[in-house]
Formats: sequence, structure tokens, C-alpha cells
Amino acid sequence: MMPLLNLKTDLQQVEELMLSQCDPLTDQTNQCRAAVRSHLGAGGSRLRALLCLDAGRRLGLAKPERVSLAACCELIHNASLVQDDCFDREELRRGQPSIWRAYGLTVAICSGDLMLSAAYGCLTKLTRSEILPRLLEAIHGQTSIVIASQDCEQKAASEGLSCLSAYEQIAIAKSGALLVLPLQLPLIASGHPAAGSDARRLAESFAVAYQMWDDLQDFEADLKAGSLNAISVLMRSGIDLEAARSLIEVRAQYWLGYALQASLTLPSRCGELFVQQAQSLLAKLPSTTALTGIC
Amino acid sequence: MMPLLNLKTDLQQVEELMLSQCDPLTDQTNQCRAAVRSHLGAGGSRLRALLCLDAGRRLGLAKPERVSLAACCELIHNASLVQDDCFDREELRRGQPSIWRAYGLTVAICSGDLMLSAAYGCLTKLTRSEILPRLLEAIHGQTSIVIASQDCEQKAASEGLSCLSAYEQIAIAKSGALLVLPLQLPLIASGHPAAGSDARRLAESFAVAYQMWDDLQDFEADLKAGSLNAISVLMRSGIDLEAARSLIEVRAQYWLGYALQASLTLPSRCGELFVQQAQSLLAKLPSTTALTGIC
Repeated sequence: MMPLLNLKTDLQQVEELMLSQCDPLTDQTNQCRAAVRSHLGAGGSRLRALLCLDAGRRLGLAKPERVSLAACCELIHNASLVQDDCFDREELRRGQPSIWRAYGLTVAICSGDLMLSAAYGCLTKLTRSEILPRLLEAIHGQTSIVIASQDCEQKAASEGLSCLSAYEQIAIAKSGALLVLPLQLPLIASGHPAAGSDARRLAESFAVAYQMWDDLQDFEADLKAGSLNAISVLMRSGIDLEAARSLIEVRAQYWLGYALQASLTLPSRCGELFVQQAQSLLAKLPSTTALTGIC
Repeated sequence: MMPLLNLKTDLQQVEELMLSQCDPLTDQTNQCRAAVRSHLGAGGSRLRALLCLDAGRRLGLAKPERVSLAACCELIHNASLVQDDCFDREELRRGQPSIWRAYGLTVAICSGDLMLSAAYGCLTKLTRSEILPRLLEAIHGQTSIVIASQDCEQKAASEGLSCLSAYEQIAIAKSGALLVLPLQLPLIASGHPAAGSDARRLAESFAVAYQMWDDLQDFEADLKAGSLNAISVLMRSGIDLEAARSLIEVRAQYWLGYALQASLTLPSRCGELFVQQAQSLLAKLPSTTALTGIC
């Protein structure tokens, strides 16, 4: 991804805020503290932080506000990554041993807890406290969706899901929930809570398309690991591999179109970085004529 | 414990708020939702909720405020219980299979996450948003201490701690951190943030004494499980079992005295339920003359 240049100093402050909120008053050798620092220090796209910073800037939020909200979004996402790696026994994350592999399961789970609590801690930096209740409601609402989705995904993978619409609902909960926040929080903070439904449509549609694209890349690996994959879902209805691949490509394009449409009504073009992401994903998919049957 | 009668309806509302905040917008068969309901439905002393409700009432907080703060304290505590059971592989909790035993590790960890996020969600019910930043700061501060303490406790248990003062620091972090909140939050909400240090001294001292009393009851079981226990800590310095027991009894009395002393300076006798708890614990300990050498 190509971050907008003027977000660079904002992003630096996001990194600093994340680390300072994950620093419990304890000895510096604490494993949980070390694990969080190791995880955050390994990089990552910081997509959610950038989406939030860009939206916040376009909506006129002061720097401390957009930095706090961006750090909040990014910390919840990273908490979910660290704990997902525990559940899936993923050995690697960002090219280095995952936290549970390097520090053990207990420290990894605690690191996730610390980042989750720290996400809420970031809100103490907001000076306009009157916006806090709506922000808290949105954050807990989306966080509880993503937490609950873990069970749905596990069930779907073990039961051999064959319904693409159910797959999409899981993708909306699992990936969409935390992609909604980087738009929803700046909209609330800038006095546009009503735009939240279009923001949700944009973020959730992008999330489904992105998940499908990811599944297209990882089909063989997912098959081996028994993970949920959109192609496998279609193949369970008797569709062969190549046709399933094409159908998922078309379906991803449909969701990206839907995302782009939703972006048009947002105030101050605050979904612009989402739009860039959607266009870049569209360019990676082969151009086809829509197979209207499945869309 | 003997809850004050007029806290009964408050407590009922705490139970309802905890359940409603742990109800993600998902199908009702979600395992994570079910696990939280099963855990919360199995009872428990609700000590932290009662401490918070009693303090809030004495400090003149409106009912919705004290209920929100009490639910917040109780949810963080229950999140820590559910995840501790995972780490310690405890089979039973409140007379029924622990959540990880009944639902598996993934659902149990997610249930803890859900309760932790829901604790922050409870704050949306507060109408005076100007108190939110300080509340958030206090909650995340204490929560991060308890999360980080997991590593200290594990290290101490595996390395065979022989220093009672280090043991006490761990008890303050592990048990004290979440006992501070039921006093600290109502004090912040009622405009007495400066009383926080005495509240901390009261809650932390009570926590150490309670942990020691617990260790006196569970010595054999802890020895078998390799868990941290105050008696074992002293015995590693060459003190025999009976002498170690007596010393821990005296030390617990010392901490309870310290707790009672700290309660005297709190506004509106807001630590009264803590005082009752401390006195009831004192009555369970054998009366001895203080062994000043160790105190």
C-alpha cells in the first residue's frame, strides 16, 4: 500500500501511543510487555491506522484525536491477530515466530488482552469527552462482533460450509467488523454519526472482497489446513475448481463495486483511502464480464 | 459475605447490564455468548460489584452510575477468572466445569475477551461524559497491571520464590489491582480522585491479607499443583511448616490493620464494606501477639 505522505508523522505518533498504552507499570523484563513490543515492532501494513488517519484528516479532526482513534483501531486488530495465531497455531507472523511460538500461549493470550485494554486506554487522550460514549459504544459493538465470529468461523470450517452467502456473513463479521471502525470512529468524532451506515457498507464490502482475494491466493494452503475458503465453499456445491475460482473473482468484483458505490455518499470524501485500496484490489483481479447468475 | 439489603436491586441491575453488554449481535447459538452466560449464571460472590455499589451509594452516585461502574469492575474480574482457569487448567469453577473444560480453550479465551471489552462498554451508560477520561485511565491502568502480573506469578512459581516481600508485590498486582477499582471508580465519579491513594492502600492491603488467608487454606493443594503459596515462600528460607503458618497468620493480620487504618481517611466512609470484609477476615485468623520481627 502507498500511504499518503502527509500521514507519516501522524503514523509515527500512532506507533508511540500504541507502545505507551501497552506499558503496564511493571518491571521492564515483563514477558507480556516484551511480547507486545516484539509484535508491534515487527511492522505490518498499519492499514487500519492509515484508513483512520486519512479519514480523520479529511473530516477535520485535530491531530491528537485522529492519532488516538487510529491507535485504538490498530491495537484491536493486532490483539485479534496475536490471539488468532494462538487458535490456529500459526508458526509465523510478519516473517518472525508468532508470539505464542516465541513466548508461549499464556503470554500470547495476555498480550492480546493488554492490546485490547490499551485500545480503550487510547481514548483518554481525547479532550472532547462528550464524544466518548458513542465512540465506546461503536468500539465495543464491533469488537464483540469480531470476538463472536471466531466461533462461527470454526464451526463453518469444521462442518464444511457450502453456502456462499453464509461465508460472506462470516467475512463481514470477522474481517469487516474491525475495518468499519477506522471510518466509523472519525465520523462519530466529527459529528457525522448518521454516515455510519454507508461507512459500514463500504468497509464490510471491501472486507468480503479482500477475503475472497486472499482465499484465491491461499486456496491450496487453506485446503491443507482445513481452513474456511470461498473456493472450497463453492466446490462443495459440485462446481469444479476453475469455475469456482472464476465465480469468486467475479463475486469479489461485485463487492468492490458495491464498496465504491457506498463511498460516494460519505462526507468530505473520507473513504478515499478505502477507495484507493478497492481500486488496487480490482486491478489485481482479472477483468471479466459479470456472471449475473451468482451476483 | 453479607450484602447490605438495599444493594439487592442495584445488584440485579448489575447482572442485567453485564449480560446485555456481553450479547454481540449474532445468532443466539454463538458459543462465546453461551459460555459467558453460563459463567455469569453460575453465581459467584460479586464482591467487587457490592464493594463498588456500596461505595457509590455512600458517595452519592446516581443508581445508573454506580450500576455501570459495578458491572465494569465485575466483568473485568470475571474475564480474569475465565482466562486464569485456562492458564492453570482448572477443571472446576463455582461447582461446575470451567469454561475451557466445557467449551474448549478458544471459546474460553474469547469469552474472557468479550467480558473485558464489555467492561468498557458498560461506561456508555454514564451520562456525565466528563468523568470518562479519568475512569478509562484508571480501568486500563489497573487492568494492565493484572494482565502483566500473570507472567510474574508464573515466574515466581516456577523459580521457587523465597522472598515474602516479592510475594506480596505479586499479590498486590494480581489480586489488589482489580480490588482497587470498586473504590477508585466511584471516588473519581464523585469528584474525589485525590482519595485514590488511600483507596489503593486499603484495597491492596486487604488483597494481600486475603491472598495469605487463601494460601493458609490451600497450602497442600498449592504444593501439589506447584502454585505460588506464601507458606512455601517462607519454608524456602528454612522455616518449618508450623512456624511459617503462624508467621503468615500474623502477617495477614498486619496487612488487615494497615487496610483498616487506610479506610479511616476515605470520604463518606466509602470503604465501609471493605472494612466489614477485613473485620470478618480478622475474625477467622487466630488471635496472636504480633511477631514484630517479620512485620
